[in-house]
Amino acid sequence: MRVYLAGPDVFLPKPHARVAALKEICARHGLQGVSPLDSHPHEPADWSALTEARRIALRNEAHMAGCAALIANLTPFRSPSADVGTVFEIGYMRALGRPVFGWSNSAETFSERTRAFLGVAGPLDADGMSIEEFGLTDNLMIDAAILASGGALFVQAVTESARWTDLTAFESCVAAVAARSVGHS
Amino acid sequence: MRVYLAGPDVFLPKPHARVAALKEICARHGLQGVSPLDSHPHEPADWSALTEARRIALRNEAHMAGCAALIANLTPFRSPSADVGTVFEIGYMRALGRPVFGWSNSAETFSERTRAFLGVAGPLDADGMSIEEFGLTDNLMIDAAILASGGALFVQAVTESARWTDLTAFESCVAAVAARSVGHS
Repeated sequence: MRVYLAGPDVFLPKPHARVAALKEICARHGLQGVSPLDSHPHEPADWSALTEARRIALRNEAHMAGCAALIANLTPFRSPSADVGTVFEIGYMRALGRPVFGWSNSAETFSERTRAFLGVAGPLDADGMSIEEFGLTDNLMIDAAILASGGALFVQAVTESARWTDLTAFESCVAAVAARSVGHS
Repeated sequence: MRVYLAGPDVFLPKPHARVAALKEICARHGLQGVSPLDSHPHEPADWSALTEARRIALRNEAHMAGCAALIANLTPFRSPSADVGTVFEIGYMRALGRPVFGWSNSAETFSERTRAFLGVAGPLDADGMSIEEFGLTDNLMIDAAILASGGALFVQAVTESARWTDLTAFESCVAAVAARSVGHS
């Protein structure tokens, strides 16, 4: 089964090595990991006239269309939330009706991270805008989409230095996708 | 034409007044704005057993399914990027093949905002993770989806105090949706 690997992993210093590590774990569980770094076998010729950014975006959409599920790295990225490119892809796969799985190397709630980020103790930020208080991992659209899609969410606390290296929660996610895919190849 | 109004506007101190202002502008252009704050006329009875967060998420998905286009407030929210709930919804509507329009009260590029947020001048953050350098408004999946969907993007610089009040770029967006919808009602 082909699984799209969404996450800010592609921004890491050695993105190809990182993606190879993710794919190796997928392979060990009988899954084929598909990455935003992969070329696409059927790219329309007219994509070559597009900017690189647009070509990457259309390629990622095509990769998702060709995958049976999505695994998202929800580890907070430059904010209290997951990387927005990843979140876009979660919404995309959710609308396609395919299962979305998520993992994160932060075990704090979204509310806790948001308050720490803003430096406030109460329910509002400095603009008087409210903070989501649902005890979830991230914005409610993300957590709810994962559950409603038939996916699952795995979070674990890791040390700050292991934030972008520890793949324990990722492997839990892969195992859950593999268990679900039995009989659905 | 029904248009879904995505954005962190629902977190503002007076969310109902804000949504009423957005809908009034839509109505003036012949559009019906649909907000996450609206109830849904056909909620399945079993939703009442769900948590509030899940019910809100499913309701928003149902609202989107019933709208012909989406207008997203991309004004950066607690990060260099748009609100992640909004970004989820952009991905969702993009996958449904419907036009996505965006507006923002920040005219800086995503790269500029990310560097300012991180306090770095170069192409990498403190973890050695790269910064997108495409000169776009936000992560490439967002900008590219808006263009590919047939939508449009309106940005303008406003003073910090007008960040959550100025609706000039929003109205440009509404006018563009209305112009596009002529003959498609």
